[in-house]
Amino acid sequence: MSTPLITPRIAITLGDPAGIGPETVVGAWHDPRIHELCRPLVVGHPELVARAVRLLGIAARVVSIEDPAEARSAVDVIPCLTSVSDDVLDITPGTIDARGGQAAFDALCTAAQLALEGKVDAITTGPLHKGALSLAGHKYPGHTELLAELCGVKDFAMMLYLGPDERVRGPAGLAIVHVTLHMALRDVFAVIDRQAVLQKTRLVARVMAELKGSAPRVGVCALNPHAGEQGLFGDEEQAIIAPAVADAVAEGINASGPLPADTLIGRACQGEFDAVVAMYHDQGHIAIKLLAMHRAVNVTLGLPIVRTSVAHGTAFDLAWQGRAETSGMIEALRVASRLANSPLRDSRTLK
Amino acid sequence: MSTPLITPRIAITLGDPAGIGPETVVGAWHDPRIHELCRPLVVGHPELVARAVRLLGIAARVVSIEDPAEARSAVDVIPCLTSVSDDVLDITPGTIDARGGQAAFDALCTAAQLALEGKVDAITTGPLHKGALSLAGHKYPGHTELLAELCGVKDFAMMLYLGPDERVRGPAGLAIVHVTLHMALRDVFAVIDRQAVLQKTRLVARVMAELKGSAPRVGVCALNPHAGEQGLFGDEEQAIIAPAVADAVAEGINASGPLPADTLIGRACQGEFDAVVAMYHDQGHIAIKLLAMHRAVNVTLGLPIVRTSVAHGTAFDLAWQGRAETSGMIEALRVASRLANSPLRDSRTLK
Repeated sequence: MSTPLITPRIAITLGDPAGIGPETVVGAWHDPRIHELCRPLVVGHPELVARAVRLLGIAARVVSIEDPAEARSAVDVIPCLTSVSDDVLDITPGTIDARGGQAAFDALCTAAQLALEGKVDAITTGPLHKGALSLAGHKYPGHTELLAELCGVKDFAMMLYLGPDERVRGPAGLAIVHVTLHMALRDVFAVIDRQAVLQKTRLVARVMAELKGSAPRVGVCALNPHAGEQGLFGDEEQAIIAPAVADAVAEGINASGPLPADTLIGRACQGEFDAVVAMYHDQGHIAIKLLAMHRAVNVTLGLPIVRTSVAHGTAFDLAWQGRAETSGMIEALRVASRLANSPLRDSRTLK
Repeated sequence: MSTPLITPRIAITLGDPAGIGPETVVGAWHDPRIHELCRPLVVGHPELVARAVRLLGIAARVVSIEDPAEARSAVDVIPCLTSVSDDVLDITPGTIDARGGQAAFDALCTAAQLALEGKVDAITTGPLHKGALSLAGHKYPGHTELLAELCGVKDFAMMLYLGPDERVRGPAGLAIVHVTLHMALRDVFAVIDRQAVLQKTRLVARVMAELKGSAPRVGVCALNPHAGEQGLFGDEEQAIIAPAVADAVAEGINASGPLPADTLIGRACQGEFDAVVAMYHDQGHIAIKLLAMHRAVNVTLGLPIVRTSVAHGTAFDLAWQGRAETSGMIEALRVASRLANSPLRDSRTLK
């Protein structure tokens, strides 16, 4: 990726304090490349950050701040804006605790608010635990829906993203966006319609234009095997997906499809497409998880703010042992920096 | 793989003469390892084999035979049993032609009959084209259903198989079998029942016991994302899949599930499972095609004979240009040899 035009200020949340979030944030902070890409600050509890610093044996001090403007971040200085109460300090690592869910919720609300006010250029979030969030009284399938509500948007999507490497050959990496996500497979047929397919195609084309710097090539998955084999195995390709792709093309999007999902994703990896629109959860997730379990980045599309996250979860079984993989957090910060720098993004703040 | 106990006789069909079948057969024949694993013979038209020999510039002569017992195969001697009429010699490469469909059909029937009579120990088939098969008046979704009919079995399945390599870490490789296959996604819910899941689990456990030489570990996919998240996203996991897995365990099969499909396949690749039972086409095919487009082997389960095939198609766009990948055919012959040698297989012929 090229050198950023600005060095964006990014608020990083710790996620659920009982999970691997804090140690991945501190582990990523220790990578000097991060400080060339962005000016990070942490949102959470300074003592949790200090514990993670000690756990990883890193030479860095944690500085409490009250406003992002005070942040003087460096590889050995971690500014932390306190968003949560001291009771998070009593949570047992690796457990589902309402206080952990509340802490993740509070940090996310604070970070999103900072971004909406233009005090940071992007937010990158640590993993939260849906069960803990629910115990704390917040019923959301995940970060994405909560952020959409905080930002007051209805037209949004969760995108999974992999940067280019030896298995993902496209110059801008590979994005996968889903038309349906956390619902029974039996229920997707009522939700997949021409408008929904077009909307996700538009959202992913827009964000990949920012990451690629030119018009992305979007491949749209079929719903049925072999793309329905000319109507022999289902008609959603002809009735819904092909018309939606035609709509997208009429809007100037370089979209193709419906294409059989099993070969489309391989073709995209070879560099033939920059983005794939999947019809349901497993169609995209099977591919992304096989390609790269750890380094995948979750990007929320349709928000007025830039938000990225690790694609992995809280990994309670690994938490606070100093063994968590940090490549996902590093990638999430890299993608947030790129998006915050996009000349296509009107709302970016130039400081 | 260890040295075979017998050197099995394998009949190889050319598949559709207009496709890449003939050149993949001749290309694989040229690999000396094949002749350590098995005693192959070709079923098709000798002149097609001779043309493929000339195309690839290989030093081998084609010998017409009338019975497998006459076959004296060697890296430079290709015995061919004629199963098709001379009109296949006029087919234009890369075209859908009823004569090509008929030739593939005739060769398959001949090869299956040889195996049923014990004249060969296994058959390995070149790719056929469903459209050409249909033009010739034979309406089958593919080889699998046709073979089941020829062998008079109702309890069968198509399995995709990858041998061990750097991405497939299990000692016996990775098998994926599907509960449903070539049908609209909307229709799978009526077909996925406890009996169907149990039956496919049994079939894949049996064949992987032959390939592994010990009890395989079978992971059964969930149908819904996150395995239904405790009933929140669909109830097929609790109502159908979990009871079927319990049935399999009660029969002595080392089966686990339902497990979320997106992580199960990655875990299987890491060596945690030898086989995966997928609920529908794309769940398994997305994974197999991303892992290895060319070297995947298709094994028909439930037949009284051993039958393997390449997992790729006729590739009309590449046919008769001498550019086709032969690794799939080599792998298909290797797997057929292993299965023909299994001590668990009662019906094998020892010559």
